[in-house]
Amino acid sequence: MKRTHYAADLRPEHAGQAVTLTGWVNRVRDFPGQYFVILRDRSGIVQVTVEQDNPAYAVAGELRGEYVIEVSGTVRERGEAQRTDAYPTGGVEVIPTAIRLLNRATTPAFQVDGSPVTVNEDIRLKYRYLDLRRKEMQDVLRLRSRVQAEVTRFLDAEGFVNVETPMLTRSTPEGARDFLVPSRLSAGEFYALPQSPQLFKQLLMIAGLDRYYQFARCFRDEDLRADRQPDFTQLDMEMSFVEQEDVLELNERLLRHVFQAVLGVALPDPFPRLTYFEAMGRYGSDKPDLRFGHAFTDVTTLFAGGSFQAFASAEAVKALVAPELTRKQIDELERVAKQNGAKGLAWLKRSGDGFTGGISKFVGEVAAQLIEQTGVQDGETLLFSAGGWRPAVEALGAVRNALRDLFDLTAGGPRFHIGWVTDFPQLDQDPDTGQWTYMHHPFTAPHPDDLGLFGTPEQGRIRAQAYDLVLNGYEIGGGSIRIHQPDVQQQMFAAIGFTAEQAQEKFGFFLDALSSGTPPHGGIAWGFDRLIMVMSGAGSIREVIAFPKNNRGVDLMAEAPSPVDDRQLTEVGIQLRPASE
Amino acid sequence: MKRTHYAADLRPEHAGQAVTLTGWVNRVRDFPGQYFVILRDRSGIVQVTVEQDNPAYAVAGELRGEYVIEVSGTVRERGEAQRTDAYPTGGVEVIPTAIRLLNRATTPAFQVDGSPVTVNEDIRLKYRYLDLRRKEMQDVLRLRSRVQAEVTRFLDAEGFVNVETPMLTRSTPEGARDFLVPSRLSAGEFYALPQSPQLFKQLLMIAGLDRYYQFARCFRDEDLRADRQPDFTQLDMEMSFVEQEDVLELNERLLRHVFQAVLGVALPDPFPRLTYFEAMGRYGSDKPDLRFGHAFTDVTTLFAGGSFQAFASAEAVKALVAPELTRKQIDELERVAKQNGAKGLAWLKRSGDGFTGGISKFVGEVAAQLIEQTGVQDGETLLFSAGGWRPAVEALGAVRNALRDLFDLTAGGPRFHIGWVTDFPQLDQDPDTGQWTYMHHPFTAPHPDDLGLFGTPEQGRIRAQAYDLVLNGYEIGGGSIRIHQPDVQQQMFAAIGFTAEQAQEKFGFFLDALSSGTPPHGGIAWGFDRLIMVMSGAGSIREVIAFPKNNRGVDLMAEAPSPVDDRQLTEVGIQLRPASE
Repeated sequence: MKRTHYAADLRPEHAGQAVTLTGWVNRVRDFPGQYFVILRDRSGIVQVTVEQDNPAYAVAGELRGEYVIEVSGTVRERGEAQRTDAYPTGGVEVIPTAIRLLNRATTPAFQVDGSPVTVNEDIRLKYRYLDLRRKEMQDVLRLRSRVQAEVTRFLDAEGFVNVETPMLTRSTPEGARDFLVPSRLSAGEFYALPQSPQLFKQLLMIAGLDRYYQFARCFRDEDLRADRQPDFTQLDMEMSFVEQEDVLELNERLLRHVFQAVLGVALPDPFPRLTYFEAMGRYGSDKPDLRFGHAFTDVTTLFAGGSFQAFASAEAVKALVAPELTRKQIDELERVAKQNGAKGLAWLKRSGDGFTGGISKFVGEVAAQLIEQTGVQDGETLLFSAGGWRPAVEALGAVRNALRDLFDLTAGGPRFHIGWVTDFPQLDQDPDTGQWTYMHHPFTAPHPDDLGLFGTPEQGRIRAQAYDLVLNGYEIGGGSIRIHQPDVQQQMFAAIGFTAEQAQEKFGFFLDALSSGTPPHGGIAWGFDRLIMVMSGAGSIREVIAFPKNNRGVDLMAEAPSPVDDRQLTEVGIQLRPASE
Repeated sequence: MKRTHYAADLRPEHAGQAVTLTGWVNRVRDFPGQYFVILRDRSGIVQVTVEQDNPAYAVAGELRGEYVIEVSGTVRERGEAQRTDAYPTGGVEVIPTAIRLLNRATTPAFQVDGSPVTVNEDIRLKYRYLDLRRKEMQDVLRLRSRVQAEVTRFLDAEGFVNVETPMLTRSTPEGARDFLVPSRLSAGEFYALPQSPQLFKQLLMIAGLDRYYQFARCFRDEDLRADRQPDFTQLDMEMSFVEQEDVLELNERLLRHVFQAVLGVALPDPFPRLTYFEAMGRYGSDKPDLRFGHAFTDVTTLFAGGSFQAFASAEAVKALVAPELTRKQIDELERVAKQNGAKGLAWLKRSGDGFTGGISKFVGEVAAQLIEQTGVQDGETLLFSAGGWRPAVEALGAVRNALRDLFDLTAGGPRFHIGWVTDFPQLDQDPDTGQWTYMHHPFTAPHPDDLGLFGTPEQGRIRAQAYDLVLNGYEIGGGSIRIHQPDVQQQMFAAIGFTAEQAQEKFGFFLDALSSGTPPHGGIAWGFDRLIMVMSGAGSIREVIAFPKNNRGVDLMAEAPSPVDDRQLTEVGIQLRPASE
C-alpha cells in the first residue's frame, strides 16, 4: 500500500500535494452531483469531495459506513464558505483521482462515526472491535501505550532489569482466591495464576538482580466490583540496598517524567506527603483526594466533658465545613455517613455569630471557638462525626467525598494531585477476636525505631515502612521496605501468632531463600489500569482495557468462559462436580 | 544506603576516592594478619583488603560466602606485583574504613563464586535464586531486558500501540492443547489461557488501531521438549494497510536497531531471502543455518535413467560435500539420515579423478560430471539422499546439521546469520488421507497470483503470503498477510473442506468481525525466548527465563503444580476424576 499521510495530518499547507489515504468511510453525504465522503483513520477524519465528473464518482456512490477504502488524490484548500473549525482538517478537502474499495462492511451494530453512543455497555463489549474504532477509546489505548514506553525508557536508563516472572505458579492459601489451572502432566495437581509477583520479585533481589521491573499481569478471583477485573496489570518494581526514601525518590522522578512526556503536565518536586494518621485524621481516608481542601478540624477537646453527651466522652470529634446545605442534602450526607459506620451525622448552620439547626442548642458555650477553629463562614454548614477515632474519621471521610461530588469541589483545583501516604501501621487487630494480623503482608519491614514494641500491648503502634501513592483520591500504588533479617521476621511471625513450623508450612521455600543472603530491599507496585484511568479521565477500569470482562467476569465478545469438551477435562484429570453438591 | 559505585566499575583512576560498596561476599581468603574479601554485586567483583590493624579486621574475620555486606573505604591502586588481569578491577583494591554486616547466609547448596557449576540442572532450578547470582545468568537476563527496551523504544517511535490482550479467554479446539481455568462465577465453564494473541491482534486491526505490538505471554499444554516451556513469550505485532514487503522492511529495521544497540552487531541491509522451495531444495530445511555453506547439489538428472537403480528413477537426488569422513562418522551420519526418514545414506570418497568406497562402483560413467557439479575435492566425501523430493531433502538437511556439529563448521563463519524464508505453501496435504489443511492458520492470505488454483488439483502449489525469520538455523519469527476479503476466506475454507456452517461454528464471532470492515493487514510474532537464546549464545530456553519449568512442566523451586484444598475445587465446581478412569 502506498499510504502517504494519516488523514488528520492534512492542513492547508499541503494544498496541491498528491496524497494517498487509507481508512474507513465514517459517513457519506449525498448531494445532487456530489458526494462528501468522510474518511476516518486512527488519526481522525478528512473530507473527500467527489464531483460528478470525477472518475471516482461511481465508486463513491457505492460507499456505505465502515467500508474500507484507499483514496488517491490531491489536497485542496477549502474556500472561506466551506471552511470549518469543527475538526482539525476542516480547512482542506481531498479531490480524488481514484477511490479503491478495499473491503465492504455489514451495517454496524451501532454508529462509531463520532455521534454519541447510546447503546448499553453490554452491546459495546460484544462488538468491542467496533467500539474501539471510536476516537475516545483509541486515545486511551494510545495513552496507555505511551506511558508504558516512557516507563520502560526511564527504568531501562536507570539500570532496572525487566524480568518476566512465572504465570503458572503455586497456589497459596493467603490473600485473595487463586485462579487454578489443572496440570495434565501432573494429573490431580494445579498451578495457580499469580496474584502478584511479590515473592518472585523478592527472590530476584535475593538473586542479586539489584533493580527489577515488570508490567505484570495479575489475577484475583474475587467478586467483581465496578473498578475490578479478574486480570489486571501492575507496574511492579523492586530495588536492593535501599531505604524507603530511595524508593520514593525514584518513583517521583519516574512519575514526573511520565506525566511530562505523555501529558505535558508538571508534577511537583517533591511530592507532598502525609502519614497514615495525618491522612486519616484530616481527611478520613488513607487515599485522600487532595484536589480540594475541606480538611477536618479536630474539636475533640472543645467538646470534651461538655454538655453534649454524644461528643463529651468521644475518642474523637471531627468537624467538616460544608457549603450551605438543604435539609435534603443533609439527609443524603447522613445516609453516606451511616453507610460508612457512623450512627448519624450531627450538623450546624452558622448564622451570624452563632449557629442554628441540628445540634445548635448544645453548642452555645463553644460557638465562638467553633467558628474560630473551623473557619466556618456565615451561612455555611458544619458537619460532625464523633466516636471511636477510626470509625469517626472514616465516616466523615466518606461525607467529604460525597460533598466533592455534590458541589463539584475539584472543579477549581488542579487536574492532578499526587502524593504519598506513609507510616502505615504494621499490624492490624481484629476488633472482635483481638487477633493480630499483618496490614500489608507478613514481609513488610517495621520502622526500626518501633522494633521494641513487638510483643508488647503497644504493638499496634508499630509503624510499617509502607507507603501508598495517591492520585486524585485513588490509590495508584503501594509498596514497602521488606524484612531481610531473620530475627525481625521471627518477631513479626510471633506478633501475628505464627509458630516457626506454621511459617515454614505457609511460606516454605521462600523462607529458605530469605536465609541465603538477602540484601535490604524494597519496592512498589502501581495499579497500572487505575493509573491510566485517572490519567485519561476515563470513567471505569473497563474503558482503559482493550478487551475487558464485564462485572460477571464474562468476555461478551469472545464468549468466555464457556463449556469445554469432556475430553479436555479428562486429559487434566478433573470432572464437573454434580450440581447437587 | 549510600552505595557510591558498583564494584566492577572501580579502576586505578579512582585511587584515593572514598567509596561505599554493597553486595555479597564472593569469597574470603585468609592469610596471616590479612583478609582478602572478594565483594560481588551485579556488576562483578572487587577485592577488599583488610590488614590486621584495620578497624574492620574483626568483622572481616566473621565473613563467610554469600554474607551481605556494606563496605566503606578508599580505593588503592595495586602494586605491580599484586596487579591481575583476571578480572576488570584487578588493578585496584578497596581499603575499608568500615565493613557493615547486613545479613548472614546459610551455606549455599552450590558455589556461585565463579567456579564451574557441577551440580545437575534440577539442583540449579530448585535454588534458582542462587543460580541467578551467577554472572552468566544475570548477563542473559540483562540482555533480554535491554532487547525489550530497545524494541519498545523503536516500535513506540514508529507509532505502534502496545495493547495487552486477554489472558483469560475462550478455549478453541484448534491448534495445541489449551490450559484451562475453571470459572467460579460461571461454574461448569472454563477460560483458556491464550495460545497466542492471533485473533485479538487481528481484531485490533479491524478496530482500526493500525499498528499494534505486545510482548505476549502465551500458553500451550504440549508435551515438553528440551526447548519448550508451557508458557513462553512472543513479541507480537500487526500492521494495517500493508503488504508483505512492508512487514519485512519494518522488521529488518527493528532487528538491525536492536542488534546494533544491544550487541553492537551490524546486521545486513537488506536481509537475504530464500523461498521455501529454495531453502528446502538447497539446505533441506525451512530454517537453514546459513552461518556455513554446504548447499546441496541437485544431481537428479545426472543419475536419471542410469545404472544405479536407487537413483535412476528418484524424484530427487541431492548431493552434499563433506570433509574426509571415517567409516564411523559415515555410520553416525547414516543414523541421522534414517532418523529423518531416509532409507540410507549413499556416499563416495573422491580419490584423484574418481571415487572409492560407498556406491563408487555405480558412478564410473558420471564421475567427472559429479566432481565438476559438486566441486568435491580430492579426499572429501560426497553424501547422497534420494527419493521423494521432500523426504530426500529433509534427511540430507539433518545430515548437513550433523556435519556442522561434527566439524564445527560455523567456527569460521559470522556470529549471526539472519534471513527470511518466504513463499510457504498455503495448503498441506495429508499424505495418507489426501485431506487438505492449512499450513499456518486458516486466515493466512494466499498469493494473489495463485488464487486461480483454489479448488483445482494444483491447489498444493498455492503460495501463502507467509514468511519466517531464521537466525542461525532457528526459526525466531513467523507471520503472514491475513485474508481480509470474505470471498477469499470462503475459497480457503472450501479448499480445506469446511462448509460455511462449520466455519461459523469453529470461528464464530471472529468471522462476524471480519465482515465488519476489515482492512488489509498482516504481522509477525517473534519467539522471544528463542531469539534471546540465540543472541546470548545460551544452551537452552531455560537459561533465558528467570524461573523456568523443567521438562516435566514443574517449577522445582516453588513446587508448582501442587495439590490444592478440596474447598478450592468446590468453589469452581470441579472435582478430581477418580484414578480408575
